Amino acid sequence: MLEVSNLFAGIPEALSEELFQDLLKTPHFRLERIVSHGQASPPGFWYDEPTHEWVALLSGRAALRFADRDDLFVLKPGDHLLIPAGWRHRVEWTDAEEKTVWLALHFP
Amino acid sequence: MLEVSNLFAGIPEALSEELFQDLLKTPHFRLERIVSHGQASPPGFWYDEPTHEWVALLSGRAALRFADRDDLFVLKPGDHLLIPAGWRHRVEWTDAEEKTVWLALHFP
Repeated sequence: MLEVSNLFAGIPEALSEELFQDLLKTPHFRLERIVSHGQASPPGFWYDEPTHEWVALLSGRAALRFADRDDLFVLKPGDHLLIPAGWRHRVEWTDAEEKTVWLALHFP
Repeated sequence: MLEVSNLFAGIPEALSEELFQDLLKTPHFRLERIVSHGQASPPGFWYDEPTHEWVALLSGRAALRFADRDDLFVLKPGDHLLIPAGWRHRVEWTDAEEKTVWLALHFP
């Protein structure tokens, strides 16, 4: 019944693609673990989500770019931010050495 | 508008009490950061919450005890679990050296 998992465990050694896993899902939100290993959004691709997304980076490094901003948001472990629905953004790069583990909480 | 905060920042050097801070609050959930530094639940005290609580430990160490279980759940960074509503539990101890940072997501 009570089951302890670890956010840094259960990650394949080689990640040819980003790993997306729901940790919790209710009608009102979805909590997701994302693991990246050097991946980035494809050139020209922008996430344009209908829901808000609170995102926290727990390990590794990554850079987020927003469509209406010039500056890059370089994230280190512990960094978190709220990306409002409809704010177009992309992952410019993620750490090629260490795996980047994210928590993402999606809600309307 | 876009503001990056850090889960390990903004913590007073000395914590005479645990620190509880809401990161996000909607009608459907509340996401909270908790920082402990050696604190534990008072003797004989049990949390008995009307909402479910997903909890993740991000730094430090802690031990949770549940009213109907003999074993202690010792948590290390990255460990997470879902505590169902009404499951009486207490924090038996938290790390006295390093600060223990938790994320707690409360939802009905």
